[in-house]
Amino acid sequence: MQGKALFPLFCLLIRLELANFANSKKPNRRPLTRLARTKKTEERGPFLIVRTLPQSLFVSFIMLYSAMEQKNALLRTALVQISCSDSTAANRENNVRRVTEAAAKGARLVVLQELHDTRYFCQTEDVDNFNLALPVPGEATDFYGSVAQEAGVVLVTSLFERRAAGLYHNTAVVFEADGTIAGTFRKKHIPDDPAYYEKFYFTPGDDAWRPINTSVGRLGVQVCWDQWYPEGARLMALAGADLLIYPTAIGYSADDTPEEQQRQREAWRTVQRGHAVANGLPVIAVNRTGFEPDPSGQTAGIRFWGCSFVCGPQGEILAEAGEDEEGVLMADIDLGRSEQVRRWWPFLRDRRIDRYEDLTQRYLD
Amino acid sequence: MQGKALFPLFCLLIRLELANFANSKKPNRRPLTRLARTKKTEERGPFLIVRTLPQSLFVSFIMLYSAMEQKNALLRTALVQISCSDSTAANRENNVRRVTEAAAKGARLVVLQELHDTRYFCQTEDVDNFNLALPVPGEATDFYGSVAQEAGVVLVTSLFERRAAGLYHNTAVVFEADGTIAGTFRKKHIPDDPAYYEKFYFTPGDDAWRPINTSVGRLGVQVCWDQWYPEGARLMALAGADLLIYPTAIGYSADDTPEEQQRQREAWRTVQRGHAVANGLPVIAVNRTGFEPDPSGQTAGIRFWGCSFVCGPQGEILAEAGEDEEGVLMADIDLGRSEQVRRWWPFLRDRRIDRYEDLTQRYLD
Repeated sequence: MQGKALFPLFCLLIRLELANFANSKKPNRRPLTRLARTKKTEERGPFLIVRTLPQSLFVSFIMLYSAMEQKNALLRTALVQISCSDSTAANRENNVRRVTEAAAKGARLVVLQELHDTRYFCQTEDVDNFNLALPVPGEATDFYGSVAQEAGVVLVTSLFERRAAGLYHNTAVVFEADGTIAGTFRKKHIPDDPAYYEKFYFTPGDDAWRPINTSVGRLGVQVCWDQWYPEGARLMALAGADLLIYPTAIGYSADDTPEEQQRQREAWRTVQRGHAVANGLPVIAVNRTGFEPDPSGQTAGIRFWGCSFVCGPQGEILAEAGEDEEGVLMADIDLGRSEQVRRWWPFLRDRRIDRYEDLTQRYLD
Repeated sequence: MQGKALFPLFCLLIRLELANFANSKKPNRRPLTRLARTKKTEERGPFLIVRTLPQSLFVSFIMLYSAMEQKNALLRTALVQISCSDSTAANRENNVRRVTEAAAKGARLVVLQELHDTRYFCQTEDVDNFNLALPVPGEATDFYGSVAQEAGVVLVTSLFERRAAGLYHNTAVVFEADGTIAGTFRKKHIPDDPAYYEKFYFTPGDDAWRPINTSVGRLGVQVCWDQWYPEGARLMALAGADLLIYPTAIGYSADDTPEEQQRQREAWRTVQRGHAVANGLPVIAVNRTGFEPDPSGQTAGIRFWGCSFVCGPQGEILAEAGEDEEGVLMADIDLGRSEQVRRWWPFLRDRRIDRYEDLTQRYLD
């Protein structure tokens, strides 16, 4: 698939020069026509370039323009991976400092981890933790709106939303670079397993899977547990997402062997890279790092495994953070690449929508 | 998740001995009860074992029995990766020899690659190739039924099926170890790109996604291009598949750079490992190897990339073949592992079936 970016330009030249090739040998079997045309185009391209000086200059200009276009299609992105303390003020300060650093490095899109203002409070079920929830819009969105505006970046945040008394969501809020709210996504799939008691806290989102329109693209933002579900990734792709984004909080249990821990972390990475491949879209996953004790003392706490990463539309890793380090992970994402990948592997073309109705069933027993 | 296979046995003993623990400290907060119970069960297990001699003997017996059960739960599987010639007779001989070898090594399930009786004839569109298609049941299934019976294995084959004049399918046929046909699956998603002109040959399967019941488990068999679709994997899982199986034929184009070739092969592996993770099921993928020229001479042919593999329900690679070698790849698949993996990561529990209806849409524009 490499090197085909200039293909349309060569096609243009070939059309202009078509008469010169009137005597070309015609492919004599219909089924091979498409392929024959493709091959010949590529073979004749270089020949055309040197045929005449004016055409050579024209091609040089086109190639320069194309290179500039390609550069513009690169989206400089930053993932902020931090270790959270008990202090919301300190966590915010940590995030802001890193957003500023990311902006200084040229980021146009910055993604924070899940529930980045607090420790991962779902290790226990405690009604007092509902005090951490805030309305959207409200004080927290005012704060991060200002952060986005000052840094001049599109900012993906993850907040504990109080929608009404007794109705709370785990909500990603995306800010435009001017500080306005571009859109929100309420976590759809809610986990519940020992030390991750999220069903106690979060009502499953009841909105649609809709990408959030921003100045850097249509962002298919979901949250953490959503990352395990091919359905969500596909729905975002069908709704026109340019990339898939998952703020997350996942870590090791001390009860598991090192081998099991490694399998879990690799599974987490693999399933998301799989979404990239299946949908021909880049994926951004931002995880927290550091150890957080269990306030109840009943478990040995969680060591969040970091390893935030960005992959391209073939699942290829573009950038990856370490397990235990805080930091800003930079990646240049070529948003034009999906177009090429999907042309050669057009999975959306061949979906059997006439046979997928059972996907809305719990189990086929 | 390791070492939890004996958990139910300890539970049984604990129930028998429950009265002895009447004075145990009760967990005093509801949300933590589940976790506290789990931890204590594990802590008390070893204590119980040494409490009394009769109980110790009982436990020894139970552990031995459990180990035997676990061994039985291991499904010895063989993947046959070959390079095909122009001769169907020679290809069949090659397959049979390797099925025999697999059986001698203890395989109970043997999986052949896609369209293993012929070269990959879809490199060109040629009506004469329809002569290769055979009815199911018919001569080919009689042949492979005998092979399965003689080897005493469940055998997954991949045939070019003539269903009626002008109606052909790419059909996986699964044989029980007694040689009878256990079931078939007609390829659902049909590709069409240069050198893979399958839409010309194969009508998309119109049957349901149903695993095929065999003596070694419920086999979620699909074919090649199906492997890129999370929808098919999910539907097989919802219908009760014990493992996912994909005979396939995919290779490198000489037009692509080595880097692009590597991305493609890794994407192919990743998306299938992703299905394993998303569904908590093992995956078997069997690809052909070797170079096959384009009969029309229009392209440089296909170098099939081999790399047949088996992964477990966390996407972890259990066995993997090389790119260019023919051979029998053996793997012991623990069919009991999915139960554990799905208990800890119960993705099926949390699917948002109330919000998946748009998966039957082509695009949401």
